[in-house]
Amino acid sequence: MVSDDIERLISLLAKLPGLGPRSARRAALALIKRKETLLVPLSKAMAAAASSIRTCSVCGNLDTREPCKLCLDPRRDDKIICVVEDVADLWALERTASFRGRYHVLGGTLSALDGVAPDDLNIPKLIERADDAAVAEVILATNATVEGQTTAHYIADRLAASNVTISGLAHGVPVGGELDYLDDGTLSAALKARRPV
Amino acid sequence: MVSDDIERLISLLAKLPGLGPRSARRAALALIKRKETLLVPLSKAMAAAASSIRTCSVCGNLDTREPCKLCLDPRRDDKIICVVEDVADLWALERTASFRGRYHVLGGTLSALDGVAPDDLNIPKLIERADDAAVAEVILATNATVEGQTTAHYIADRLAASNVTISGLAHGVPVGGELDYLDDGTLSAALKARRPV
Repeated sequence: MVSDDIERLISLLAKLPGLGPRSARRAALALIKRKETLLVPLSKAMAAAASSIRTCSVCGNLDTREPCKLCLDPRRDDKIICVVEDVADLWALERTASFRGRYHVLGGTLSALDGVAPDDLNIPKLIERADDAAVAEVILATNATVEGQTTAHYIADRLAASNVTISGLAHGVPVGGELDYLDDGTLSAALKARRPV
Repeated sequence: MVSDDIERLISLLAKLPGLGPRSARRAALALIKRKETLLVPLSKAMAAAASSIRTCSVCGNLDTREPCKLCLDPRRDDKIICVVEDVADLWALERTASFRGRYHVLGGTLSALDGVAPDDLNIPKLIERADDAAVAEVILATNATVEGQTTAHYIADRLAASNVTISGLAHGVPVGGELDYLDDGTLSAALKARRPV
């Protein structure tokens, strides 16, 4: 009953994470109602993104430049490489504005179940980068999940031969968090890693 | 830190209903990662929708044709017009496949607070359509909210002089619903409108 063009828009919108069939319908209607202020600009922004954005061959970040802005920035520290699973993690770390080194985006985690082997991720390039004499430390900032930590262990093993310090993110109580709501593992890790005040 | 093209994509996506800044970032990343299967097709679908979809001058529905498919369909019953607030409501009714008359989309509800007067809605056109001798019944299927019911009352008053039957949707227990979870107003309406089994 709905026009084919609208139907197609809805079915594509429903593929976005966070939008189901129902919210995709709402989004499609909102787009059509705001044709000039939202639908047309968004369509153009998507076309622009599709043609301009590529994966950085050095670090795996997404950017319009190649190598990416973060790899080219002369003010960033070449000595430290922070390894993350995904571009979203890189964005999250950049939002904190507390890391000024380089990044390396793996593009996922190792998974025997899903058939993801080391060569399917951006790992060989990382080993190559870590061999550079300028690099002194590699921070393994993969997620604190089983897959993330397995991947971190694997990378640590591969880097054991090279001359870099390998570190990981600290576990502990989230800032602003309440102890009562924290899981036991995090709480015991925070207790073990207690610091003098 | 994020490229301008990505930033722009995120800020536009965040304007969609159901997507906040965080989920807009996730959606943008998902789009960029699935460039050929999602980003490019969605951009094209939006451009197509923007150029082809218009508001039907008869009923206010959205369609690529003018008048819309539902107004042109010769198998539909000209005798009944179902009045809804929004195109989303028309879609919802069409999904039930239980109404074969014509529609009339108001495009909102009357609201003194927001300054929405009868002429801001698609009401004059409805009065004109109801005057047609072929029309025997107008179903006021606005939402069962204060605004929806106020608008329905207003339309019923305006149509009082014309020769049509005016009806509204039945109130009652939702199919599959549990009495225990139902609000008092609905339950008492369902009791009042009880039917022989």
